[in-house]
Amino acid sequence: MSEDHIPSKHVLKAVEQLSSLPSVGRKSALRLVLHMLKWDADRIEAFANSMKDLATEVKYCERCFNLSDSTLCNICASPHRNQELICIVETIKDVMAIEATKQFNGLYHVLGGVISPLEGIGPSDVNIDSLLKRVQEEGTKEVILALNATMEGDTTAFYLHKKLNPLCAEISTLARGISFGDELEYADEISLGRSIQNRTPFDKADR
Amino acid sequence: MSEDHIPSKHVLKAVEQLSSLPSVGRKSALRLVLHMLKWDADRIEAFANSMKDLATEVKYCERCFNLSDSTLCNICASPHRNQELICIVETIKDVMAIEATKQFNGLYHVLGGVISPLEGIGPSDVNIDSLLKRVQEEGTKEVILALNATMEGDTTAFYLHKKLNPLCAEISTLARGISFGDELEYADEISLGRSIQNRTPFDKADR
Repeated sequence: MSEDHIPSKHVLKAVEQLSSLPSVGRKSALRLVLHMLKWDADRIEAFANSMKDLATEVKYCERCFNLSDSTLCNICASPHRNQELICIVETIKDVMAIEATKQFNGLYHVLGGVISPLEGIGPSDVNIDSLLKRVQEEGTKEVILALNATMEGDTTAFYLHKKLNPLCAEISTLARGISFGDELEYADEISLGRSIQNRTPFDKADR
Repeated sequence: MSEDHIPSKHVLKAVEQLSSLPSVGRKSALRLVLHMLKWDADRIEAFANSMKDLATEVKYCERCFNLSDSTLCNICASPHRNQELICIVETIKDVMAIEATKQFNGLYHVLGGVISPLEGIGPSDVNIDSLLKRVQEEGTKEVILALNATMEGDTTAFYLHKKLNPLCAEISTLARGISFGDELEYADEISLGRSIQNRTPFDKADR
């Protein structure tokens, strides 16, 4: 019997698997497994199969490296998206976040990481070569650098800007500043500082 | 594409399955799935298989209804346990909690619920008949009623006491009182009241 007195090695194994997930503790995992044991066999099987499908069925889009069920993702395959505009993001979650705004109608390119000399991640470890090739071949008119405002994100943005400059007419980056609804008093210095430097003509401001 | 812009129906299905578990929200489920997608195929398969085993491999002990991998659980099958002492509990988690104390060397009987007239749960809906049969056939000398101190737990304890009285020499219940380390000032009235009623001779008190 295990230290937490689980009387079945199969239950123990399921608990160990679940608690290997981030932020799932051993006690929560046991609670989840005991809950699943109340399900009928078909429901448990459906659960297990949908996990298994993650290994076999989920692909990455050949063009933009977004999650996909086929060789091209829904966004790349859509005839309604602007094929000359690419938004460069770090992760798949960033694609979902931007899609949720419903403000962007172009394509994406998921780098799958950012350049980080400290962690030994160089330009060849993220999807940069494929991006440069894409921009050349697809005749992209504009790219948006939508990377996080971290040191690594900025490093990657500078690197990409240098590489993309000869290939692409327009390179833009996300507007930074005070969030809507934020009070100046509580804004951090860097955001407030940048939003003064990058002040917008009053009649062009989107309010 | 789904409302949360998950670009793969397989990922979506896995998210839906995980978020059907208690206290796993949709956002956490997505985070877990994106984490699993970084695993290699073998690891995902091992995860899925251990969930599937919950449906096919986990059994309940024929004698005490504890979780088990075979017809008798480890506790019932052990020659080192006192076969004439049964601790009656509501759930499998209660067995684990009592085992963790290392203070009990008898057997268990898991009722799988308590009598609750309000919810329409009668004596025949929990494992009571099998308990009475067991006590008769096994020549049990003592049973301990280790039920929760809720209205339903007390109802069940009274019912069991009535039924077990002619069959078994000794019927005891868990000692109730102020927890070790608790301050009187902050104890609830019922616990404090009961611990005055059931006061223990000073030289017998376990301190």
